[in-house]
Amino acid sequence: MRIVVDAMGSDNHPAPDVEGAVIAAREFGITIILVGDEACINAELAKHDTSGLTLEIQHAAEKVTMEDIPSHVVREKKDSSMHVGINLVKQGQADAFVTAGNTGAVLGIAMLRNVGLGRIPGIKRPALGVIFPTRERPLLIDNGANADCKAEYLYQFGVMGSLYVERVLGIKNPRVALVSNGEEEGKGNQLIKEAIPLLENSGLNYIGNIEPKEFMYGGTDVAVTDGFTGNIMMKMAEATARYMSDLLRENIKANPIAAVGGLLAKSAFGRVRKVLDPNEVGGAPLLGINGVVIIGHGRSNAYAIKQAVGQAKQVAENDVVTAIAKGI
Amino acid sequence: MRIVVDAMGSDNHPAPDVEGAVIAAREFGITIILVGDEACINAELAKHDTSGLTLEIQHAAEKVTMEDIPSHVVREKKDSSMHVGINLVKQGQADAFVTAGNTGAVLGIAMLRNVGLGRIPGIKRPALGVIFPTRERPLLIDNGANADCKAEYLYQFGVMGSLYVERVLGIKNPRVALVSNGEEEGKGNQLIKEAIPLLENSGLNYIGNIEPKEFMYGGTDVAVTDGFTGNIMMKMAEATARYMSDLLRENIKANPIAAVGGLLAKSAFGRVRKVLDPNEVGGAPLLGINGVVIIGHGRSNAYAIKQAVGQAKQVAENDVVTAIAKGI
Repeated sequence: MRIVVDAMGSDNHPAPDVEGAVIAAREFGITIILVGDEACINAELAKHDTSGLTLEIQHAAEKVTMEDIPSHVVREKKDSSMHVGINLVKQGQADAFVTAGNTGAVLGIAMLRNVGLGRIPGIKRPALGVIFPTRERPLLIDNGANADCKAEYLYQFGVMGSLYVERVLGIKNPRVALVSNGEEEGKGNQLIKEAIPLLENSGLNYIGNIEPKEFMYGGTDVAVTDGFTGNIMMKMAEATARYMSDLLRENIKANPIAAVGGLLAKSAFGRVRKVLDPNEVGGAPLLGINGVVIIGHGRSNAYAIKQAVGQAKQVAENDVVTAIAKGI
Repeated sequence: MRIVVDAMGSDNHPAPDVEGAVIAAREFGITIILVGDEACINAELAKHDTSGLTLEIQHAAEKVTMEDIPSHVVREKKDSSMHVGINLVKQGQADAFVTAGNTGAVLGIAMLRNVGLGRIPGIKRPALGVIFPTRERPLLIDNGANADCKAEYLYQFGVMGSLYVERVLGIKNPRVALVSNGEEEGKGNQLIKEAIPLLENSGLNYIGNIEPKEFMYGGTDVAVTDGFTGNIMMKMAEATARYMSDLLRENIKANPIAAVGGLLAKSAFGRVRKVLDPNEVGGAPLLGINGVVIIGHGRSNAYAIKQAVGQAKQVAENDVVTAIAKGI
């Protein structure tokens, strides 16, 4: 197993990216290929004990920033760590590509048919899956790759999400639901109404429409949505969780007795934070691409990078790409 | 000022609806017309001290349930408390209608041109505004009246939302933003991209696109979105807040020291709950209808009903309907 890690991906690159790769190489006993500026990677590697590990470096002259416009990067930064890293997977020199960089750029480069991986035959649109850190860890797909969708795309997201959850998370016959503004018949926008019969006749374990409360409380294993809604759902959950934490902190600090209580309850707050920490979940799989690509959060720390590598390993080992090609 | 309150609206009707009406009549010194089953209303009124208040009863033989399909209610339950109550406003016998009932049914009945109020001339689609209980209390519009929207509707939601916030909340030159999956140029779905130039040339204080985090942290006064996305945003925020509370409660209970801390910090938890309590905000104004209609949450308690009546009074006093008719 050989996994490429983009050393220039995260907001604080290369430190978390390289450290995460070192931890992953040791924990999983696999070969890691670090891609990016060679001198920069070597300087970072020198800070860690790498004895006994198989770490390779693949130089890439350019890097993609979070501010870069994806369409521009795809065409103009052909020596970027993303281009070089994804091409290693295309050439069969690696099994998966992991990055915590600019999502739009990864998607665009992965889609390229010449240097990238292209789509799995039959797939209309690749989609970004994200595992929500709630108790039952549902997969939300699409999480932002496709702002505008057709019903057929949603059907395919259901197929891909179901196969991912079954193969990688080991859930048999996973429940698949459409995210809607109500569970009742007649609810939903035009897109949802058109997608319902496609999912009903899909052979998937389609359980109907769900609202955000069922999604948060474990009502489904796969939640299918267009990338605009999915992205806003995830950001709304993050913003609400942060807002509530801030509000609680302020109110606890404002009163001396509550402040003592807050100190005593600190361990509980810590556990809640840990449960909701996006670093715990690993990365978001880019499904429908003809190869394994995992995209981590820009704010990933070394642990999150390591988790994303572990996830990439699982996706590659369980051959999710072939399963999707057969499933479509 | 005469305001109609639907006695058969809330999940627990008629108790909260009637009690809220009694409190509102006393607090605001206005006439309240309770609409619904006369015997039922009288029995409920007998539980309260109504001396010195001007409370009228208008009998309605039918009531709308939360399970009723709106299109069916509109046509088949012509003696419902919603039909009768809204018609009182149409006939000029009341200044506003307040209900905590089935949103789709209220919308459908209010839209009727014969017995209902119809649209304000020039308005393509009425929309539901909801004030979020975050610090700066932004108005989110549309919150579920229109699952499918055109760019022109979003533009009109911006105009209506801006006038509502200016007149009712007293915010001068309110900021108007579009909710999108990113603030950068090029982000957004097709609908957002088409709406941007309309808002840029609207004469409104359009500040661009916002993500959920800016929305939660006071980045705008009016957040414009289609009713599908808006409804899911609100429900996602509610579900996340509830999930976090549950998680915190469990983790606090699981450890004896944290449990003591939780007790000491109880006042702080209570204040956070109060800030995020939808009952505090009142109801959602149905904007674009040719009359004042306020829709409360189905779970409204008496306090929430009273708040919704207060809001209806403000909307009527500040003549938001005329302002919208002139603004379009």
